[in-house]
Amino acid sequence: MKKSKKIYLDYASSALANSANPGAIHQLGVKEKNKLENARKNVAEILGSHSDEIVFTSCATESNNLAILGVVKKYLEIFSHIVTTNIEHASVFEVCKYLEKTKQAEVTYVPVETNGIVDPRKIKKAIKPNTVLVSVMYANNEIGTIQPIMEIAKEIRHYKKQTGEKSVFPIFHTDATQAINYLPIKVEKLGVDLMSFNGAKIYGPKEVGVLYVKRKTPIGPIMFGGNQEFGLRPGTENVAGIVSLKDALQITEKIKEKESQRLTKLRNYFVGKLKEVDKKIIFNGDLENRLPNNINITIPKIPSDLLIIELSERGIMLSEKSACKSGDGKASGVIKAINPNGNEKNGSLRFSLGRQTTKADIDYTIKALVEILIKLKKWYN
Amino acid sequence: MKKSKKIYLDYASSALANSANPGAIHQLGVKEKNKLENARKNVAEILGSHSDEIVFTSCATESNNLAILGVVKKYLEIFSHIVTTNIEHASVFEVCKYLEKTKQAEVTYVPVETNGIVDPRKIKKAIKPNTVLVSVMYANNEIGTIQPIMEIAKEIRHYKKQTGEKSVFPIFHTDATQAINYLPIKVEKLGVDLMSFNGAKIYGPKEVGVLYVKRKTPIGPIMFGGNQEFGLRPGTENVAGIVSLKDALQITEKIKEKESQRLTKLRNYFVGKLKEVDKKIIFNGDLENRLPNNINITIPKIPSDLLIIELSERGIMLSEKSACKSGDGKASGVIKAINPNGNEKNGSLRFSLGRQTTKADIDYTIKALVEILIKLKKWYN
Repeated sequence: MKKSKKIYLDYASSALANSANPGAIHQLGVKEKNKLENARKNVAEILGSHSDEIVFTSCATESNNLAILGVVKKYLEIFSHIVTTNIEHASVFEVCKYLEKTKQAEVTYVPVETNGIVDPRKIKKAIKPNTVLVSVMYANNEIGTIQPIMEIAKEIRHYKKQTGEKSVFPIFHTDATQAINYLPIKVEKLGVDLMSFNGAKIYGPKEVGVLYVKRKTPIGPIMFGGNQEFGLRPGTENVAGIVSLKDALQITEKIKEKESQRLTKLRNYFVGKLKEVDKKIIFNGDLENRLPNNINITIPKIPSDLLIIELSERGIMLSEKSACKSGDGKASGVIKAINPNGNEKNGSLRFSLGRQTTKADIDYTIKALVEILIKLKKWYN
Repeated sequence: MKKSKKIYLDYASSALANSANPGAIHQLGVKEKNKLENARKNVAEILGSHSDEIVFTSCATESNNLAILGVVKKYLEIFSHIVTTNIEHASVFEVCKYLEKTKQAEVTYVPVETNGIVDPRKIKKAIKPNTVLVSVMYANNEIGTIQPIMEIAKEIRHYKKQTGEKSVFPIFHTDATQAINYLPIKVEKLGVDLMSFNGAKIYGPKEVGVLYVKRKTPIGPIMFGGNQEFGLRPGTENVAGIVSLKDALQITEKIKEKESQRLTKLRNYFVGKLKEVDKKIIFNGDLENRLPNNINITIPKIPSDLLIIELSERGIMLSEKSACKSGDGKASGVIKAINPNGNEKNGSLRFSLGRQTTKADIDYTIKALVEILIKLKKWYN
């Protein structure tokens, strides 16, 4: 019989023959499985990890949920304690709130300093004998401040040494979603046990997330079904999306240094121009220790949602806070955390720059902002 | 200023300006939000439901997990009871096993009859005062048998009437993943409260799932973070994937009747030919009340994994059982359920036909099978 002939009779497993189910044992399934495992290998190489430490999920929110719930569920017999900060993304913060509410865990929210950065010694101080997890984001999604992940890892190691027991606890998780474009991500050097990120922020597919899980980290699944992803994430693997995430990560890694330098320059130029616009503008978060692409400001007395709408009408797209929390009508928890005595009504503007951003864009934005402020100051003074 | 100019400064929310975050309040975010809500409306129309009853997830496995865990979690104060069958997909079965193991719920697995179809009266008999959920798949993923969903819904209504209380319990969930291509899916007519399916089986995107949630159904999220999907599924919405699922569902719906008729004919032709190949072939599952595209057989004395590899070498792709469970080396639980006294070593072959399948494909497959059987019977007789 002709070897080249292909007859696909596995529609119940995946309706599309050209993207067969990687769990199928026939030729096309094996081909997909190979694509999947090659992508996993490439992602692992970039993180400096083993292939079997890379778990693909559907998004960073799922990765964060898996990291926290997966560890706590594993230790339901003890009343688990979690240490985190007061400026985490909703997909960490709300999981902690849920665990508190349902009395499955207790949580210490270590407050960051007024510059939006947490003191590693305060993290260590918060650790207790029943602390199973420390979760601190690598860079903040609103104010772009970079957390001292290596120093926190060091404090955790010191704590473990002090106790004298050879314990895996506390496990150290970082949400690297915003950091991944610009900061070093070799997991061993960072000293993390769990690290989340996704495709959406690295110019890749929205529907793929990653959770790095260091070997021997005690963690269980939060959904149940198939044995995919080393038993940690059931469901048919989205091979095309995973390959596309791998491609995006490779590009990100390749241009990381150059792009970071370019954006740092552009950001500093933007900051200088903003200071000229209005001396009263408040810059939120440390100006040095922050992502190259992030500027977050408060313009006193002018509501920020109004500014965003006015800017959007002039074709300039930016956000006030996390899109995950945009609809709730509440002030940003991050801004409140770094400036507890500020006027909540002022709000904040997050300008986040990227690969297509040019100096001309910044000039245009500044021009628009001046125009808008002249108009609005008539009403808000 | 020029109205047409577009400057994107929201890279932290989505790195790709052409698929902005639908949670963002600027122009591009609103545009994505509109695409999302239009897709939701179109999906709702096809199911005969309201838009706010459609929840998008990352896959059918997640939809099934959300349906079961989301209801049980809501009622943790009572010791919940679940009624299901003994031939459910792993993403229902393993969730039930997990709930039993962690003592969060008790589960009754109603055995199907030898034809692979459950008796609705047996489902009713299994319902107890603490039954919060009945979960019965619409059509089986291995043997293609169609479950009497409307009749089960009727039995549940009778049960509720008998108790006299105006209770929402038990809630009725069906996993319609395999049924959606060929069977009626108007939710009100089916009488279901929750219904899962995905894009992978309808020639659409692998990474999108749907959970229909009837208004007022008591259910909570299983992951935490943003407020997306009516608070039931956090994480940035995969708008492109969701629109693509909507397109796939519209096509499926349009050609459903014609394609069902074509495949039923083709399947019956295939069955006839198989009977000619070997009279000892066992046809698993009811031959009438099954999906038009499914044939599941056991060839006595010949290991099915060997048959699949031999067929694959001749370019013919099929599976033994669910790809979600393909790697575990165990015999199919479904085949065991309908034939508890069978020889497990025989295994089974699932031929699942689809849009590209032709009569010539069937003839080629039969020819290959004859060739393989001549070869293998020398060794296995």
